[in-house]
Amino acid sequence: MAILDDDVVNAFVPGRRLERPALGTGRLSGLRFAVKDLFDVAGSITTYGNPDWAASHPVAVATAPVITTLLQAGARLVGKTKTVELAYGLTGENVWHGTPVNPRAPQRFPGGSSCGSATAVAADLVDFALGSDTAGSVRIPASYCGLYGIRPSHGAVSLAGAFPLAPSFDTCGWFSRTASLLVGVGDVLLPGGRQPVDGPLLRVEEAWVNARPEVAEVLRPRLERIEQLRGRAIGIRVVPEGIDSLFDHFRTVQAEEVWASLGRWIETAKPRLGPGVRERFAAAKATDPAIAGPGRAFRRVLQARVRPLLAAGAVLVFPTSPCPAPLLTAGPAEQDAVRAATIGVTAIASLCGLPEVTLPAGMVDGAPVGLSLVAGPGLDRGLLAFACDAADVLGLPI
Amino acid sequence: MAILDDDVVNAFVPGRRLERPALGTGRLSGLRFAVKDLFDVAGSITTYGNPDWAASHPVAVATAPVITTLLQAGARLVGKTKTVELAYGLTGENVWHGTPVNPRAPQRFPGGSSCGSATAVAADLVDFALGSDTAGSVRIPASYCGLYGIRPSHGAVSLAGAFPLAPSFDTCGWFSRTASLLVGVGDVLLPGGRQPVDGPLLRVEEAWVNARPEVAEVLRPRLERIEQLRGRAIGIRVVPEGIDSLFDHFRTVQAEEVWASLGRWIETAKPRLGPGVRERFAAAKATDPAIAGPGRAFRRVLQARVRPLLAAGAVLVFPTSPCPAPLLTAGPAEQDAVRAATIGVTAIASLCGLPEVTLPAGMVDGAPVGLSLVAGPGLDRGLLAFACDAADVLGLPI
Repeated sequence: MAILDDDVVNAFVPGRRLERPALGTGRLSGLRFAVKDLFDVAGSITTYGNPDWAASHPVAVATAPVITTLLQAGARLVGKTKTVELAYGLTGENVWHGTPVNPRAPQRFPGGSSCGSATAVAADLVDFALGSDTAGSVRIPASYCGLYGIRPSHGAVSLAGAFPLAPSFDTCGWFSRTASLLVGVGDVLLPGGRQPVDGPLLRVEEAWVNARPEVAEVLRPRLERIEQLRGRAIGIRVVPEGIDSLFDHFRTVQAEEVWASLGRWIETAKPRLGPGVRERFAAAKATDPAIAGPGRAFRRVLQARVRPLLAAGAVLVFPTSPCPAPLLTAGPAEQDAVRAATIGVTAIASLCGLPEVTLPAGMVDGAPVGLSLVAGPGLDRGLLAFACDAADVLGLPI
Repeated sequence: MAILDDDVVNAFVPGRRLERPALGTGRLSGLRFAVKDLFDVAGSITTYGNPDWAASHPVAVATAPVITTLLQAGARLVGKTKTVELAYGLTGENVWHGTPVNPRAPQRFPGGSSCGSATAVAADLVDFALGSDTAGSVRIPASYCGLYGIRPSHGAVSLAGAFPLAPSFDTCGWFSRTASLLVGVGDVLLPGGRQPVDGPLLRVEEAWVNARPEVAEVLRPRLERIEQLRGRAIGIRVVPEGIDSLFDHFRTVQAEEVWASLGRWIETAKPRLGPGVRERFAAAKATDPAIAGPGRAFRRVLQARVRPLLAAGAVLVFPTSPCPAPLLTAGPAEQDAVRAATIGVTAIASLCGLPEVTLPAGMVDGAPVGLSLVAGPGLDRGLLAFACDAADVLGLPI
């Protein structure tokens, strides 16, 4: 597992290797961090991964509050990292800025959309990095790059000063190489209170079946070790409608919001968009409200089904991604198939607004795969504490 | 479905057709009830279903408080009903007092141990009746006789003035022909507060698989109708160790307590005991504490696994009994097999101290089968309210 230099990794947006010193001392003193280039830093244009976006937007006049909070806690900003254009994609490809290299599996995609933040952390260019996660944009690159990653409860961490994608799903998450730093950043950014997450483990059967057999095979003994902490997992099926319906419903509701957030700019600026991103925006534009309506209803049903199970501290557990990162040679059809299978699982936390932590739990075909833990809304700190215990029993970096 | 006279049903203990008038007016005014003959009524010997018990115990000097509460709420006591000897059996057989007739399926056992209370209600000899439920002694005869029945949360209703079987499992439950009266008795007997039970449905897969195929087939469409109230049920597996382990662990912990409660009397009085009951007491005497210890540990594990799922109002749903009542011609081997399969399911609520309501949901081979709803501990009133809604959507007697 080589640690690569930045001239190989290319994690940062060209011209955005900007430095901001710490604004205080605290929990994060001495640590370097980077932020996905959809968060504003005063004095710089936020590119959102697309040159036409950069050209049509002014210099930011204020820094996103979440960045200021990190600077005040002692961390130092060292740059803004690449993102899939407008954060609308999971492979991590960016044809304008160059797709960053996955340091843990250089022949494979890094995962996205927070591809630069993940690769910068994986290559030890920074200690931690901020990303955003709507459909899996922190969880998937964390899984692909062998990192810890968290998607917090929806609304738990401020997205002020960050560009939106699908606001009812958008969250601000982060990556680290150690469990303790994942917690440390959470201590700074998350609301107070530490209601424990000390309930039983719930094995989401659909997600285990959805994973490629070799992924499930590698992660199953990891789950068994975590069971030493909480007893045997209860198997649950949360989507009797079939896991495909999660992808279908999530996709339509997301597309409707994406078009509401970004459609006007797409229609007026007529930007160049890379492959995949272009097609997804065309589909978002074409989304029929008559289809998105049932999707929103499904979201309410799923929330009513899943959230009460987690109220007293139960934890969902399942493979973060159904497969390791696709090879860079994967064509559009394979990428689409991976996307559908992936969102079928990431949509659980996205649709229900739940916090999810992914642990760098295993390797398949020489590439990392993550194991996810999901808790009830607002139980982020308790979930992080449990993730630390789980990492410990798994012998992962603490 | 014939309503039978008492001279056919034989629900009451010979000589215990005792009457006590209402002691007030209230929710239950004008209603007749009976109590299983393990509850004391001042001035009468409580037989506990066995003539040697009756011969070796004095006349009760006080009435069980739960009976007084019902009298004060306006109900009138009309007699004491038959029980399996010392409440230690599920078929409802009593060779000393005569096995009461199941009015809904006269060729079959009535179910027990609260056999007289169930049959008295089923035959309309009373409006409701008290039973006790340790391993299923209300739930099973309710299922077999086509009645509503409730096993409350452990400790929710006083068992003062009632003889014990296995105190950490013993509860005071009741039977009715209508959902509203099941609720009405609960309004009088249960602690106040009505935290709603408004969470998702959890289909306990092991119990559905354990049920005979024809039972699952009849009850599955009933569950689907209840899903109209709460959305699609989540499938859960709560016993990865296998459902047989529920029976095995429950049986040993129960046996240890049974012997602690009744062993001294058995050893000193050397009573005559009927078939089945005799063998169970011999097994209880022989129970090795080294076996019951793991059973107690298993109970704690199961509680930690199941209770948090129900904290926010989720409801377990499964067939109350895996089969309709066995035919009266069933031999000991068949009875033992039915008992093991039955307790594998009833032990869920028993081991976890949870309230369970059974609804008279269907008929198989011309005999009734119940559908059970189980809620978190202490949520009895909310569970009863939900059971009413479920009965309504199923078109059952309200």
